Amino acid sequence: MIERSPLAPTSFPALPAIDGVRLAAGNCGIRHEGRPDLLLMTFDQGTQVAGVLTKSLTRSAAVDWCRDALQNGHARALVVNSGNANAFTGAAGLDAVHQTVGRAAAVTGCVEQDVFVASTGVIGEPLSDEKIVAGIEQLNRSLTGDQWEPAAQAIRTTDTFAKGGSYAVPFGDRSVTINGIAKGSGMIAPDMATMLSFIATDAAIPAKILQDLLNAANDRTFNAITVDSDTSTSDTVLVFATGKVPMDPPPTRITDRRLKPFRRALELLMKDLAHQIVRDGEGATKFIEVTVTGAGSRRDAKRIALAIANSPLVKTAVAGEDANWGRIVMAIGKSGGRADRDRLRISIGDTVITENGQVLPDYDEAPVAAYMKGQEIRLAADVGIGKSSATVWTCDLTHGYISINADYRS
Amino acid sequence: MIERSPLAPTSFPALPAIDGVRLAAGNCGIRHEGRPDLLLMTFDQGTQVAGVLTKSLTRSAAVDWCRDALQNGHARALVVNSGNANAFTGAAGLDAVHQTVGRAAAVTGCVEQDVFVASTGVIGEPLSDEKIVAGIEQLNRSLTGDQWEPAAQAIRTTDTFAKGGSYAVPFGDRSVTINGIAKGSGMIAPDMATMLSFIATDAAIPAKILQDLLNAANDRTFNAITVDSDTSTSDTVLVFATGKVPMDPPPTRITDRRLKPFRRALELLMKDLAHQIVRDGEGATKFIEVTVTGAGSRRDAKRIALAIANSPLVKTAVAGEDANWGRIVMAIGKSGGRADRDRLRISIGDTVITENGQVLPDYDEAPVAAYMKGQEIRLAADVGIGKSSATVWTCDLTHGYISINADYRS
Repeated sequence: MIERSPLAPTSFPALPAIDGVRLAAGNCGIRHEGRPDLLLMTFDQGTQVAGVLTKSLTRSAAVDWCRDALQNGHARALVVNSGNANAFTGAAGLDAVHQTVGRAAAVTGCVEQDVFVASTGVIGEPLSDEKIVAGIEQLNRSLTGDQWEPAAQAIRTTDTFAKGGSYAVPFGDRSVTINGIAKGSGMIAPDMATMLSFIATDAAIPAKILQDLLNAANDRTFNAITVDSDTSTSDTVLVFATGKVPMDPPPTRITDRRLKPFRRALELLMKDLAHQIVRDGEGATKFIEVTVTGAGSRRDAKRIALAIANSPLVKTAVAGEDANWGRIVMAIGKSGGRADRDRLRISIGDTVITENGQVLPDYDEAPVAAYMKGQEIRLAADVGIGKSSATVWTCDLTHGYISINADYRS
Repeated sequence: MIERSPLAPTSFPALPAIDGVRLAAGNCGIRHEGRPDLLLMTFDQGTQVAGVLTKSLTRSAAVDWCRDALQNGHARALVVNSGNANAFTGAAGLDAVHQTVGRAAAVTGCVEQDVFVASTGVIGEPLSDEKIVAGIEQLNRSLTGDQWEPAAQAIRTTDTFAKGGSYAVPFGDRSVTINGIAKGSGMIAPDMATMLSFIATDAAIPAKILQDLLNAANDRTFNAITVDSDTSTSDTVLVFATGKVPMDPPPTRITDRRLKPFRRALELLMKDLAHQIVRDGEGATKFIEVTVTGAGSRRDAKRIALAIANSPLVKTAVAGEDANWGRIVMAIGKSGGRADRDRLRISIGDTVITENGQVLPDYDEAPVAAYMKGQEIRLAADVGIGKSSATVWTCDLTHGYISINADYRS
């Protein structure tokens, strides 16, 4: 039994009901006995949807389905199972998606194109559509608005805690709620979308604008975290807007000033969920923030930051509470992003260690060594080229990661 | 004390003297007391040289020096120290290189441009040029042709065994010897040259052809291995040809048929040394060969193979003796190389597991599970696009890697 991550929040936050959203979660027999493994969410008519999906070329049948279903921008139901990713399962996998979608559409009373699906767990094993179909029928009888925590529980795999967040923000003259849940603890890497996350709001936002809002926030949140540089075949983020709280006149572009509080809250919520995923990184004992400044472009800044965040040598140094800034230099060098070796400024916490390509003459390692014993570690590098910056988040690489992944299936 | 890798060869091979090469190794006080940390090699007049150097943007001063010195193609001396990488040491680091080169040129009786240098060890700490200068003078008095094993010992850092190899091959009407030594056990990643390796031969080969031979072999040897995807600031491979055994007329291009045995032997030697580095991968308990076929280009094949070889999830699965082919699918998907999900064929050892994007109906995991208990693991994927292929080598990711790297400095 894996223990709760030492970096986990103390408890699951309060997620209020959202007008137009009902949920139910339970066990349909795919995972180990007794653990919840199925989530059904339904949305009132008029709900708009946007999404970001894995770019993996070996993506699952469910991801393929969502990509097509996102085209028309409407949603009425979401079915998520854990325990089996239904990835690399060929025609049988596709059939399981069709069975799932068909039954969810039937119980919800909608067209199949309004049903979204996601599966997470082991790759390559056949998914029992019979169990899911029976589960959908059962869950459909117990839908309520207040089951966000059970929903977050049902989508967990190796997660050591359920992940959720909620914001209430002004929306024109009224107020709206944004709830989100997420799962993920390994196989987390950016630029391929993320792990699973489902977000819902009662705001009325057209699908196209919702998509723009999601894309903008995604780059600085789910796409700015990494646990082990590996990318899932199933990564999916979906945002549902039930439209119960309208704005008059309706917004037509994301630059509409009235959307600003919503936009900010969506990014904060997604950042919160992304950080929770990192805090649940397999075997994590330290939360690491990496900030790169002085880069020639935003793209270069992120590339260098991710090279540092993904470096096994940097991550093991943090695990060992070793202020080994030389490994940060190494990671910058290998990143492929432009950097001026002879102008590098590297900091750990609030201590500047190097400037102009060499260690400061009066550098005292003692306070940095003390800082490394904390749970929250900030690494920063100015690469001396331009004015662009990026921040990414990761965790340390520990014996726990090896233990979890060397016998996940067995 | 780190134990000798379980994948190490039983003993250091016999490396005969090479006409025109003299060596000496000893301790000059940079590393822990008593361990050899300095190598001096000298070459007779007329020696040609070729090299491949790290592409890291934070490369060491020694690498910068070698890049310039390679321009004229002559070599008379090589000085290598372990224990300190002299990387990211600013003006002081550059000065240490100049002091080293100056003294080596003086004792050898050559111009400074004919001296090559390499340093390996901790990054960012000042290197004592006084110790090295004194060491050079001492070693210069004990140069002989038979000290290849002490030389391989002196360039070790976290290596658990010294690495060497030798071939004797026809060269025109005569026979030549090629000796090589190498060091490296972590921070090994391709496409940035390699770790340290020094190769010498008595063959007469012009520097330009030697460089072409080195580049060709490098792509399939040192640039096809990875331990942890991290890249050193000091990676250096140098090949010296003393010219004692001429070919008449001299070769003018690498396609000269008379060079074929030499070319083949050079690649075999470099592959042998590269494999020894992987076999000494930090914490390694399994040697892994990854072959990708059916790719659209050689570049794509290598990219996909490296994505598999660098995946922490694949590497931990091998460590756990888990035939988790789903993680291979995942790694192919994230690689960015073209692959047809629905035509993927994946094998472990001699067992084909999937074909046309799904697991074979009669797949029996038992023999594969037994195979995974071995020390030599072959993973193969045909990605169903074209006819290009690539093979790379790596090792598993174990608790040993974490133990070694979480307290390397402390």
